[in-house]
Amino acid sequence: MATGFGFQVAASDGRARTGVITTPRGKIRTPAFMPVGTAGTVKAMLPESVAATGADILLGNTYHLMLRPGAERIARLGGLHRFMNWTRPILTDSGGFQVMSLSDLRKLTEDGVTFRSHVDGSRHFLSPETSMEIQRNLGSDIVMCFDECPALPATGAVVAKSMALSMRWAQRSREAFGDRPGHALFGIMQGGVNLALREESAAALTAIGFDGYAIGGLAVGEGQEAMFGVLDHAPGFLPADRPRYLMGVGKPDDIVGAVERGIDMMDCVLPSRSGRTGQAWTPRGQVNIKNARHQDDPRPLDENCSCPCCTGYSRAYLHHVLRAREIIASMLLTWHNLHYYQHLMQGLRDAIAAGQLAGFVADFHTKRAAGDIAPV
Amino acid sequence: MATGFGFQVAASDGRARTGVITTPRGKIRTPAFMPVGTAGTVKAMLPESVAATGADILLGNTYHLMLRPGAERIARLGGLHRFMNWTRPILTDSGGFQVMSLSDLRKLTEDGVTFRSHVDGSRHFLSPETSMEIQRNLGSDIVMCFDECPALPATGAVVAKSMALSMRWAQRSREAFGDRPGHALFGIMQGGVNLALREESAAALTAIGFDGYAIGGLAVGEGQEAMFGVLDHAPGFLPADRPRYLMGVGKPDDIVGAVERGIDMMDCVLPSRSGRTGQAWTPRGQVNIKNARHQDDPRPLDENCSCPCCTGYSRAYLHHVLRAREIIASMLLTWHNLHYYQHLMQGLRDAIAAGQLAGFVADFHTKRAAGDIAPV
Repeated sequence: MATGFGFQVAASDGRARTGVITTPRGKIRTPAFMPVGTAGTVKAMLPESVAATGADILLGNTYHLMLRPGAERIARLGGLHRFMNWTRPILTDSGGFQVMSLSDLRKLTEDGVTFRSHVDGSRHFLSPETSMEIQRNLGSDIVMCFDECPALPATGAVVAKSMALSMRWAQRSREAFGDRPGHALFGIMQGGVNLALREESAAALTAIGFDGYAIGGLAVGEGQEAMFGVLDHAPGFLPADRPRYLMGVGKPDDIVGAVERGIDMMDCVLPSRSGRTGQAWTPRGQVNIKNARHQDDPRPLDENCSCPCCTGYSRAYLHHVLRAREIIASMLLTWHNLHYYQHLMQGLRDAIAAGQLAGFVADFHTKRAAGDIAPV
Repeated sequence: MATGFGFQVAASDGRARTGVITTPRGKIRTPAFMPVGTAGTVKAMLPESVAATGADILLGNTYHLMLRPGAERIARLGGLHRFMNWTRPILTDSGGFQVMSLSDLRKLTEDGVTFRSHVDGSRHFLSPETSMEIQRNLGSDIVMCFDECPALPATGAVVAKSMALSMRWAQRSREAFGDRPGHALFGIMQGGVNLALREESAAALTAIGFDGYAIGGLAVGEGQEAMFGVLDHAPGFLPADRPRYLMGVGKPDDIVGAVERGIDMMDCVLPSRSGRTGQAWTPRGQVNIKNARHQDDPRPLDENCSCPCCTGYSRAYLHHVLRAREIIASMLLTWHNLHYYQHLMQGLRDAIAAGQLAGFVADFHTKRAAGDIAPV
């Protein structure tokens, strides 16, 4: 592990495990869910509120930040932590995924990707070397290798070719990253839903050697069954003494299934993005607060939830401010969703530590199957 | 005064005065600035944050709330305080001003105003009696009489006729309000910029008898000089032992000038609305954070300000999140502006109590004249 970093597994239950990643900026309890702070903010939240939900780490997006306000500007201003007023650890992605999904006029070569900004049309270049430089300018605690994630559907040959390129880029990322005490570098396994490619990718990454290992190229439209099919095996291809990070996952039931299969870290925009459109999660499943059934309901989203949204506001109020397009709707629902996600992670960690994960998971599914409370 | 209400002037300095309005829901330190919570929320703020800025009372808009979510619904849900999670006093306007400025297809008669909702086109009727009923349903602590505010420019005859109608409506409002212990009713002086009409209006209201007196029909486009011209005399037409409320004012220098002229209460959307468009106020005047001069500025908006925006974030960050249209820009700038307004009110109260208002006002204008800090 990089100087200042450590990972201790405290307990296992089946393939699931709980532990702590230690970093110079604080501890990350695993399994960990990382809220996404795309452009230097977890949308509709103040950073102290994100911390209050129990988040030990958040994710920043290299692609967005390099385009606006610019990584060199953030470096001059003291780095991303100071810029966005977040003192705990930050993981940054490499930009590789979003340059393929968001930018215009991409041109991919062995060297890297040339593209036009979706913000202002300006021309940019991302490669393993430039991505490492940008993430260094941001001051990220956990840096991700620059990789390629092929668009689905893709043929086996395309996935294999792309994985091989990502492994060459992983080697170049490792060399460009160098030795940076206090900063960790994670490799990213690719290979789609092909287990042989996944194993080959894991072997290539392990040979290079990283502080942690991500599983990329999932949660991109293949469906939960196919994703779990990969996760039944892929974590086992990776070193047990390093954190395993499943990128871009997911819904609460995706998270539970991933943790059962040995995943230590996850990130997703879902709790924050859904909050802004009136979708809330509770132990009873998803609630669409926009629905007219809530307009006279004096009860909170979840009577057992201790978040500011549930302790202070009725479903009727949330329905009203969402319909009236008031900013407080995004603020309260995002806070609730992030609180619920972190509460779920704490439940998973406690259950694994107690050796009671199977019971916890059964209870999780039973409560969701019962559905939301009946209308008033 | 209504049962449970009181107003004590603690000190005067020239025509300015400082004191306390006591209500069953808490004290209101005067001169008081009331943030506007139009539709059951001070936009982009949690209510505990509004309280943290030092606001003792906020204003709710009858027109907006009657249309969505509806006053009867709010009554069923326990009243506006509980609905929006605000425990301190609330003043509601009568709907009279906004029905003229926001609704469609108005028809004004002696009885009241028929109009179509700007939200969904539905037909509604507002009169002194229905306005009192709606404000009772909302559970407002300070209820405003239903009045008419003529659109500018208006001839003297139109203003005189409108003022006379408002005085008849004030009488009907008083009768419809009845005796409601714990709830106060304020009359509204009209008369445009005509001092004789203002004096006549004040005499009519005083004859009816109210718990407080508002000055309406100003800050509607007449300009600061004309407004101050009215305020040089109009407060003196009203009983000295009751609060005087200047409706819809204003910019910081409007507020200072109004307090100098004997005003005890004010409200305005400006600090919250401007926050959402990147306009901030500091003792050095107005700052447009959207301006490119701030993009590399590591300094806060105001180095002497103790609000969360100024203690945690640089101008460069605020510039970035505003440009990126992130919700946190509205959250931070609104918080700062409301904090600055309340800080200004505290300064005015302290200066009046110390008999040093003239020096405070001179300093206020000197600092503003110096302008914003030089670019980095």
